[in-house]
Amino acid sequence: MKSKETTGSICVVPSIKVAGVHCGLKEKGKDLGLIFSETPTISAAVFTQNAIKAAPVIYDMRLMKKIPDIRAVIVNSGNANACNSNGFDAIDDVVNTLSKKLNIEKDQIFVASTGIIGEDLPSEKITTAIDELVYRLGSNKCDDFSEAILTTDTFTKQMALNCSFYGEEFNIGGVAKGAGMIHPNMATMLAFITTDINISHDMLDRALREAVDKSFNRISVDGDTSTNDTVFIMSTCQAKNEKITTENEIYRFFADQLIHICTHLAKMIVKDGEGATKTAEVVVVGAFSKKDAQLVARSVANSLLVKTAIFGEDPNWGRIVDAIGYSNAYFSVDRLKVFIGDELVYAYSKKVDFDKEKLKNYMKNDEIRILIDLGLGVYTYNMWFSDLSYDYVKINAEYHT
Amino acid sequence: MKSKETTGSICVVPSIKVAGVHCGLKEKGKDLGLIFSETPTISAAVFTQNAIKAAPVIYDMRLMKKIPDIRAVIVNSGNANACNSNGFDAIDDVVNTLSKKLNIEKDQIFVASTGIIGEDLPSEKITTAIDELVYRLGSNKCDDFSEAILTTDTFTKQMALNCSFYGEEFNIGGVAKGAGMIHPNMATMLAFITTDINISHDMLDRALREAVDKSFNRISVDGDTSTNDTVFIMSTCQAKNEKITTENEIYRFFADQLIHICTHLAKMIVKDGEGATKTAEVVVVGAFSKKDAQLVARSVANSLLVKTAIFGEDPNWGRIVDAIGYSNAYFSVDRLKVFIGDELVYAYSKKVDFDKEKLKNYMKNDEIRILIDLGLGVYTYNMWFSDLSYDYVKINAEYHT
Repeated sequence: MKSKETTGSICVVPSIKVAGVHCGLKEKGKDLGLIFSETPTISAAVFTQNAIKAAPVIYDMRLMKKIPDIRAVIVNSGNANACNSNGFDAIDDVVNTLSKKLNIEKDQIFVASTGIIGEDLPSEKITTAIDELVYRLGSNKCDDFSEAILTTDTFTKQMALNCSFYGEEFNIGGVAKGAGMIHPNMATMLAFITTDINISHDMLDRALREAVDKSFNRISVDGDTSTNDTVFIMSTCQAKNEKITTENEIYRFFADQLIHICTHLAKMIVKDGEGATKTAEVVVVGAFSKKDAQLVARSVANSLLVKTAIFGEDPNWGRIVDAIGYSNAYFSVDRLKVFIGDELVYAYSKKVDFDKEKLKNYMKNDEIRILIDLGLGVYTYNMWFSDLSYDYVKINAEYHT
Repeated sequence: MKSKETTGSICVVPSIKVAGVHCGLKEKGKDLGLIFSETPTISAAVFTQNAIKAAPVIYDMRLMKKIPDIRAVIVNSGNANACNSNGFDAIDDVVNTLSKKLNIEKDQIFVASTGIIGEDLPSEKITTAIDELVYRLGSNKCDDFSEAILTTDTFTKQMALNCSFYGEEFNIGGVAKGAGMIHPNMATMLAFITTDINISHDMLDRALREAVDKSFNRISVDGDTSTNDTVFIMSTCQAKNEKITTENEIYRFFADQLIHICTHLAKMIVKDGEGATKTAEVVVVGAFSKKDAQLVARSVANSLLVKTAIFGEDPNWGRIVDAIGYSNAYFSVDRLKVFIGDELVYAYSKKVDFDKEKLKNYMKNDEIRILIDLGLGVYTYNMWFSDLSYDYVKINAEYHT
């Protein structure tokens, strides 16, 4: 059992081809991406929990109910295709044109959009570019696809693993975009994962849900969730392993590798959070229930005062304790301990006399860890979050509709 | 029935004397305030809902259970007396010294603190200053008291009303501090209200709770609630009205005036929010339940993306709709309407073709109003909030423990 990081992102899976082009939805840069599988696939997806959903999310949710053989995933940036007047018509245009071009069924196409909300999607820009997009599948450039899905992101987010389970080889690749509005329950965040492991639809779906719960759902940049968030996985099932249909050992191994990729992509999203200068992790242990552990982690990860303190490199444990206090979690100050890095800073309702200089130096790191021990039970939860800088305000105040 | 705004803040009530001095808890400026009633009072208080409470909050909560005759309120800024090792000892020191000096019982003294969390309170600085503090009651300067309770506030917050109910005169005065960490359920926020209306303890308590619910609990600057929040009211009961013991007409009149003062103070706190350049009000109507109206208002008022859009003067209705979407409130996009100012910007799941220039000009105002009509029921809720500017980040990143 081993897994090894490699290059190639989602193209690490044989028979998966990708492309990315500029179709004019963004002023410059690639803004239209395509993933194409030359062989049949099974797939699963997790969508935004925002009650207001973009047209592509509603479209895909309906599509995925049929357990389709998805052969193409088309993604545009620059326009979210949400809260506008031509959402489904635009999708129909795109899907019609692409299905003819690729000679596949319309319901073999998965769609996703990210960008501005409330503007009609000029689908003719996409349909006009489809010839070139499909042509470019030949050169199969993962970087082009990764770039085409970005909005305010400053770098592409990709990862690939070659895995071996007692000699049975399989691959997993992933690509994501995030930057703004990142929050538990997923924000303007798209991720596409490919694999060739031989697995049933149900088990693939289960593995994806577990991985999303442990990764993308545990990140926070600014507390808002968007209308478009989607995590999609497709498998060609062409690896030589016996088909996974239960939670056996190879399933566990696969699921852990998937968690590894999703966690890596999620942390890259936090790192690229709008205006982020540092990333932080809050780890809650000793909670009486999972719910309590979550409440504490979310309260701390979403506290603007904690975020600005981390930006200011100040070990402000008072703001952490305050955020625990209003988390609505069950806890007792008489059992509560807080660590920043390895330093105990608060224990049993009182500040601890810690080494201030040491902690000040620790706060200069790019990654800060806060450990909270509620001292009550066995449940744990962790979250990754970014700091809050001047640039966050700049990016979001200057972004105009 | 009329009420008229006047000067004098909490000193508008005869026999209430106040003072404020510098005792050295802050580097400069007044940091210790005193309210003294020459005659007996009844009083009521509402405290922070943060599970971690500062020593003075725990002390006062115990005190108020006995329905005490509070004669003095002593407040310091510069140190929150929270999460430290000498909290109650420090209070004992202060209360012992002050009770001797004023010749009152120890349990006739209400205490409050605001400032940094986690540092021991150097109570000798306070006790040493008590002679001067009490001496200054003679000059009775409301501005001194109002200044002494400030932390990162940039201006004092005061209001007074002379009220007349069919010829029966009474007064209400209020003073508050806020600035950072302002959020529903009250943040590092202190408010002290005086009146001379003749009222029972129970009815005074009821009026205060209603007023706090409609004012201080409806403001949001950054989503954090603090360990020290307190709203206190005392009445000398010396007005000539027949004692209020039920919800009669004069009770309603008094309660409405109290709401008026509390709302005014709460809005001043938002206006003085750390780094605030504008204030905004979100009004939710047509909700199926009060809970749904609250959920929507809070989600919008706490959205960093909405706050930065208001700072950037951008009528970004998409961010408002997004925040409604993840509010967890019961609503339907097919009945939802959103107005910015008087302009309908979103209706029935689609953007409305509004006058962009007009709305751009509207966004330049100091006060922005967002109206959300859920179109489902009769419940309403409103909240006031500030925008999010570079200065918020600056103030909170540069504030060091």
